[in-house]
Amino acid sequence: MTSSQGESAQGPGTLRARPVGLVGLGLIGGSLGLDLQAAGLEVRALVHRASTAERARERQLAQRIDTDPAVLQGCGLIVLALPLDRLLDPSEALLAALPADAVITDVGSVKQPVLERWQPLHRRFVASHPMAGMAEAGVEAGIRGLFAGRPWVATPTPGTDPIALAAVEELAALLQAQWLTCAAAAHDQAVALISHMPVLVSAALLEAADLGGSAAGADALVRQLASSGFADTSRIGGGNPELGTLMARSNRDAVLKALQIYEQQLKQLRGMVETHQWEAMHERLRHCRMIRPDFLRD
Amino acid sequence: MTSSQGESAQGPGTLRARPVGLVGLGLIGGSLGLDLQAAGLEVRALVHRASTAERARERQLAQRIDTDPAVLQGCGLIVLALPLDRLLDPSEALLAALPADAVITDVGSVKQPVLERWQPLHRRFVASHPMAGMAEAGVEAGIRGLFAGRPWVATPTPGTDPIALAAVEELAALLQAQWLTCAAAAHDQAVALISHMPVLVSAALLEAADLGGSAAGADALVRQLASSGFADTSRIGGGNPELGTLMARSNRDAVLKALQIYEQQLKQLRGMVETHQWEAMHERLRHCRMIRPDFLRD
Repeated sequence: MTSSQGESAQGPGTLRARPVGLVGLGLIGGSLGLDLQAAGLEVRALVHRASTAERARERQLAQRIDTDPAVLQGCGLIVLALPLDRLLDPSEALLAALPADAVITDVGSVKQPVLERWQPLHRRFVASHPMAGMAEAGVEAGIRGLFAGRPWVATPTPGTDPIALAAVEELAALLQAQWLTCAAAAHDQAVALISHMPVLVSAALLEAADLGGSAAGADALVRQLASSGFADTSRIGGGNPELGTLMARSNRDAVLKALQIYEQQLKQLRGMVETHQWEAMHERLRHCRMIRPDFLRD
Repeated sequence: MTSSQGESAQGPGTLRARPVGLVGLGLIGGSLGLDLQAAGLEVRALVHRASTAERARERQLAQRIDTDPAVLQGCGLIVLALPLDRLLDPSEALLAALPADAVITDVGSVKQPVLERWQPLHRRFVASHPMAGMAEAGVEAGIRGLFAGRPWVATPTPGTDPIALAAVEELAALLQAQWLTCAAAAHDQAVALISHMPVLVSAALLEAADLGGSAAGADALVRQLASSGFADTSRIGGGNPELGTLMARSNRDAVLKALQIYEQQLKQLRGMVETHQWEAMHERLRHCRMIRPDFLRD
């Protein structure tokens, strides 16, 4: 893995030479459109529905917005800002409209399946993942400054065009994102551990509080006594069910591996409760308190 | 379980007739001292160390503060605001100093062991649990208004003196807490489900991210990519290790029962990933999103 601050990265200047194309104007695409236009770039966007195009024009998410893939003609870099399921199943019309000489990148939160699908489709494809918030979605969600200070991970392979990679790095730098590169497998395992598997851990907690409260005849009590700690721990488990399912589905192997490690740790902690190993448990919790700050953003 | 808003509860006026005694001036005791004095009551406090007494006097946490248990003489209601381990192992000097006619209550976060220990010790003991934040501790931690709008749970038994119970309800009402009563077993199972077990669930997540990152050669990557979702889910697992251990230890049976229910739910969710039951998983996550708001405080 290599990393550099966005502001120090020097791209080859590809971005300003030709328009940037966006496929999709949801949270990620819309935010890209706003920031890139503010930086003085020409932005063209392809969207699926006429109603989306109309609203996106009102919000001025790009200079040209159309439902006709021809809008992408002449673009030098195109960002596929599509939901993962649509990214993995691109339409023929989209594929036909992508200029052969353009740099193509994506924003999908799982990288191995995307590479497998897209690397054979376009010789200048670069797999990438800007890690920005996902609570909001849709044409109303895009905001200025979404990527500033956030990781933007690219997962190049030996077959990745280095000039294309540099162009995506230039894009990330322009948005003041924190540029990282790593292997797709490492990325997918990391996001399974810190994002996709925790959704299931958190969902099981909500289910346990619900079912355990009922079993104890304390349905109302568990709800009344739940405090900020439970709210925090259950937040991602009570989030978008489509997204949670899609992540588990598209990153299945890594999520299963992460769950195996998780269940092993929980089993050990349970064993300490069963066998009254309170000093050992205290030591484990002390270690948890020590390592947690490393996982927090400044 | 019964519940009532604090402001509508009418006690028998015990509180103002005689001084209120506090044993311990940490977060809970100190906050009680500040609020009760502000309400015009006379507050006397027993603390363990001379240095604590000195600092507590500077902070004016009570009108009289001493390390001599005799300070409790004449008190009509005494709140044992001690850590759970010290509450379960009271000193002979403390026991000898508790007036036989005073109402005695506690603030422990587990109720069955407290009842078993204290009901034989004092005929006017009432087991209670004001559910206030626990991030801070010590003589500097007490603040005004800690209990307002928060649940204050009492767990009376058939042997509980109803006049004593009413006095504790009057105390909760004065502090604008939300008064609840329930069986001690129901309380302990509820807090195991929404507070004590989740600490272990959250700690195992930190351990899994740490170990799983190492196993994938991605130690730095998991730390760099962890975002607000991971921060929330891991917060209580990275909290006070003494407190986490003490809760598991003192509420062991209920924590084990809660863990069993939790592990069963997680196993089912894992099974859905293994067998590609994406519609079933989506339905489970949809249910989680639906029930979570019931667990959140307005």
